[in-house]
Amino acid sequence: MNIVPVSDSMDEERITLSHGAGGAIMQKLIAKTILERIGEFESTRNIEIQLAQLEDAGVVDGIIFTTDSYVVKPIFFPGGNIGSLAVSGTINDLSVMGAEPLALSLGLILEEGFLISDLNKILESIGDVSKKTGIPIITGDTKVMEKGALDKICINTSGVGRKSKLLISNIEEVRKYRDFQGEWPLDSNLREGDKILISGSIGDHGVSILSAREGYGYETKLISDTCPLNLMISKTLEIGGVVAMKDPTRGGLANTLNEWSQKSGINIEIHEDAIPIKEPVIAACEMLGIEPLNIANEGKVVFGVVAEKAKEVLEGLRMTKEGKDAAIIGEVKRGDGTVVLNTSVGGKRIVDMPIGDPVPRIC
Amino acid sequence: MNIVPVSDSMDEERITLSHGAGGAIMQKLIAKTILERIGEFESTRNIEIQLAQLEDAGVVDGIIFTTDSYVVKPIFFPGGNIGSLAVSGTINDLSVMGAEPLALSLGLILEEGFLISDLNKILESIGDVSKKTGIPIITGDTKVMEKGALDKICINTSGVGRKSKLLISNIEEVRKYRDFQGEWPLDSNLREGDKILISGSIGDHGVSILSAREGYGYETKLISDTCPLNLMISKTLEIGGVVAMKDPTRGGLANTLNEWSQKSGINIEIHEDAIPIKEPVIAACEMLGIEPLNIANEGKVVFGVVAEKAKEVLEGLRMTKEGKDAAIIGEVKRGDGTVVLNTSVGGKRIVDMPIGDPVPRIC
Repeated sequence: MNIVPVSDSMDEERITLSHGAGGAIMQKLIAKTILERIGEFESTRNIEIQLAQLEDAGVVDGIIFTTDSYVVKPIFFPGGNIGSLAVSGTINDLSVMGAEPLALSLGLILEEGFLISDLNKILESIGDVSKKTGIPIITGDTKVMEKGALDKICINTSGVGRKSKLLISNIEEVRKYRDFQGEWPLDSNLREGDKILISGSIGDHGVSILSAREGYGYETKLISDTCPLNLMISKTLEIGGVVAMKDPTRGGLANTLNEWSQKSGINIEIHEDAIPIKEPVIAACEMLGIEPLNIANEGKVVFGVVAEKAKEVLEGLRMTKEGKDAAIIGEVKRGDGTVVLNTSVGGKRIVDMPIGDPVPRIC
Repeated sequence: MNIVPVSDSMDEERITLSHGAGGAIMQKLIAKTILERIGEFESTRNIEIQLAQLEDAGVVDGIIFTTDSYVVKPIFFPGGNIGSLAVSGTINDLSVMGAEPLALSLGLILEEGFLISDLNKILESIGDVSKKTGIPIITGDTKVMEKGALDKICINTSGVGRKSKLLISNIEEVRKYRDFQGEWPLDSNLREGDKILISGSIGDHGVSILSAREGYGYETKLISDTCPLNLMISKTLEIGGVVAMKDPTRGGLANTLNEWSQKSGINIEIHEDAIPIKEPVIAACEMLGIEPLNIANEGKVVFGVVAEKAKEVLEGLRMTKEGKDAAIIGEVKRGDGTVVLNTSVGGKRIVDMPIGDPVPRIC
């Protein structure tokens, strides 16, 4: 079975699967290895750089800019493929920063011998998402590696956007109810009293991928939630009151909520009974001994919303196709950066920052 | 020996190394397979999209946007490594479009087991180029593939920029001497009488890589020309008169000049004696039977310049460190899209569009 060992006592000298798994070990790699070498420096140039390397995008001179590489296995899975996943993921990374996505790039790395008919299917999915959302792909690159040097295909999609006008009106709405610093929906924006919403059921993508890869059979009852969420997000910004947004991909809901609670310096309390989760996801997680809160989603958004607007945002979300199963799952409490789960049986337990997503090559 | 077979009678059903080699076969893949599925569509949104997918970058709403993935082998080579190559390449792709680069992204895909000490060296090179040029990396992504699924490391760097003010003054200068349509230095801009310049010797990168990979020994006498060229390009735009610019990477000078002559509908005549080329490159190409005009460069730019400004641009180039060996190598003639080489011995031969770069995984 292809589950990442959840130990942090690993070889310090070599890259492990956990370094790409979206949890605590990846965060450490980014902070200690990457940012120390390429991070902030004194710019001598007259441009506004808003470094936000630990958010989903950076901002330079009014341009919101994001990048993601996709190595998902298998490349075709119930509900999507590596192409639809890549373009949707990059559109979502721009959208959760409050950007209107303007354009995407497409970097293909192919293995020699890759079937052109498979490439065509992937490109058609990319074209479909691009056309459906009206977001064009305006630049690209194609590389080929010799047979055996790459497992089939990797895709990088980067994206550029502008701050959505709706983000500005959304923040004006927030300020009717409480103080709000800055102009972006950041991980550090949560304050006591805010409500936590999720746009739908958790774990669908991760369990679909795992099941398709290992043949557990859940893929017959469950499909990945991969989809672009820019319109759903616009709907919530139109209503207003959103202080933070994140697509809980690698490391799942547990990772997102832990990042929020730590960066905001508050506690988040969530209610097990309130979290939408499908029966096959529960069954698969029980069978495999994995935590649904730690599993990647590719078509969901977690929102932090001021309490006064939470119900209205929920109703708005439920009117969209992608958000029809949305729910208020918790609230922000005073605290020191802990996520607490109120269990179905009436107990409380701490939800730790996952070491990494339990499913490798999930996206 | 690791040379791409230069035949175009290949399996039509599968990806071959030539599909990523920067020549005629890659162009066909882009035009027929990729752009037909993801290309132009009616945008319903009020943004200015200047599709330029066959140039080095696209333009949307005033933002110049480019992407490149790097799969070079070996990852450390004389004169650079995959990291310095990636950031320099993306800076150059923005710069040859007449952009002032604003920021880059960094997408790392690592093989499980990759040495963190090697990653550190690569990141330090990336940081060095970023600091030296003042172009920050503001967003990134890290993925890990299991051992055996990837040969060590791939890097994607995308970049955003704004039209350089120098490009505007440069084009004003062009218009003193001849008609000029549009506002960008495109492949289609060449006109009868224009001069062709190159900023230095050809083939250094390709031969260094090949020699480092196969152990021919030329790497002791030759290093890759990998470097960022934004300042050198600014110098030429400051002088003015530049109508087209291109970094002749995969497929080399032959590819660039053939694209120019075909898209501009003119002939280009170049003079073998005028083309800067180093002794070890000549020796390696003779030994291996490969054409130096077809080999990738990573620190050179080819310029099309109005005749009246060519000498001044040449002198300006020679005053820069990166352009000290610059030369005027040819001129534009009336014609139907042919590149002609006047050989050292007094003959003429047609320089064909290469099928692909003779060296796989060159960048």
